[in-house]
Amino acid sequence: MKISARNAFKGTVKQLTHGAVNSEVVVELPGGIEVVSIITKHSAESLELAVGKEVYAVIKASDVMIGEPHLPKDE
Amino acid sequence: MKISARNAFKGTVKQLTHGAVNSEVVVELPGGIEVVSIITKHSAESLELAVGKEVYAVIKASDVMIGEPHLPKDE
Amino acid sequence: MKISARNAFKGTVKQLTHGAVNSEVVVELPGGIEVVSIITKHSAESLELAVGKEVYAVIKASDVMIGEPHLPKDE
Amino acid sequence: MKISARNAFKGTVKQLTHGAVNSEVVVELPGGIEVVSIITKHSAESLELAVGKEVYAVIKASDVMIGEPHLPKDE
Amino acid sequence: MKISARNAFKGTVKQLTHGAVNSEVVVELPGGIEVVSIITKHSAESLELAVGKEVYAVIKASDVMIGEPHLPKDE
Amino acid sequence: MKISARNAFKGTVKQLTHGAVNSEVVVELPGGIEVVSIITKHSAESLELAVGKEVYAVIKASDVMIGEPHLPKDE
Repeated sequence: MKISARNAFKGTVKQLTHGAVNSEVVVELPGGIEVVSIITKHSAESLELAVGKEVYAVIKASDVMIGEPHLPKDE
Repeated sequence: MKISARNAFKGTVKQLTHGAVNSEVVVELPGGIEVVSIITKHSAESLELAVGKEVYAVIKASDVMIGEPHLPKDE
Repeated sequence: MKISARNAFKGTVKQLTHGAVNSEVVVELPGGIEVVSIITKHSAESLELAVGKEVYAVIKASDVMIGEPHLPKDE
Repeated sequence: MKISARNAFKGTVKQLTHGAVNSEVVVELPGGIEVVSIITKHSAESLELAVGKEVYAVIKASDVMIGEPHLPKDE
Repeated sequence: MKISARNAFKGTVKQLTHGAVNSEVVVELPGGIEVVSIITKHSAESLELAVGKEVYAVIKASDVMIGEPHLPKDE
Repeated sequence: MKISARNAFKGTVKQLTHGAVNSEVVVELPGGIEVVSIITKHSAESLELAVGKEVYAVIKASDVMIGEPHLPKDE
């Protein structure tokens, strides 16, 4: 399946933390960039996630904000 | 300001496309990974975005999905 | 690829409207339920969307709110 | 109140799971389609959710992605 | 209808800008706080929005990030 | 850093609740408006959040829905 989310980055699961309803997944991309994801624990189990597994971090373009480091924050 | 969004990736603006209300921003990270972002045109102007400018792509952990390439899609 | 988004509903594209940056896609599910989606125009083209095409409407669980019709709205 | 979210699907609560902060709600639509939602536990209690209760699953159009099952995933 | 979104702020429409697919709505809350919203143009028309109209700005708790102004940004 | 999120409201932390993975933060704005936020517990700790601390509630425009109190809900 091809999905409309514009961003899909291949990496490996580096860390997994399970809560009662949600799980936190850290995905390491080539070059060492780490992407942190929160998904439901049910999804983490359904995807059979484990440290070292190859996965994609998938992000919709409208969920990516832009920060500009040289301008002061507005108030 | 430090923000609760867990993901902030430094890169440079590679491409800008403006619509009437929204703008599409492509940010290139070190190593060549490209992140696509949709923000309001007002924000793009307010941040003085231009091709080549250094910016951050900022993403909340709960907006990052995980894809598992070796399992079949459920129906 | 299997994705962590908990909701994936099979249907057919019923209507497509293109803006400069975004496109609106109406997906009809079996039983006549219509799901409205806004994706980037780039994605709509990349997915080769057309009226009548079979697609999935994919939604993260944390993006689904619950409305209770019998309680008054809080103020 | 009428809300700008384009999708509001009437159904009944089929399953409830409570965590410390969040709750998972499964809503069954007519025809048997199941929609999974994560809301705060506070909201679940405030809405007096219970299995069998009639509710709406409410989703913004920009939170609906499109999957195309016949195209290969990009890398 | 009562909705699971934890934040619903009463105000008045101060400004409306229409694009091809989306509209930008500025809502002024009591005390002068302005909330900017992007909804589909279809919703803006369906809600019969106009400058001066009383509306609610409705926001899910998981869509509210926290910024801490006194700490430096991580890199 | 200046961020593309259109809404940034200054306030003080009024209440904090920690789960295993997520934390709920209530921010009180001047005039008494309360904004509820769910962030990861890791972020809450990293931002050194505590009751009484000055923070910003930061919200993307596309995450703000509009409710119209005088029209009936569609079905």
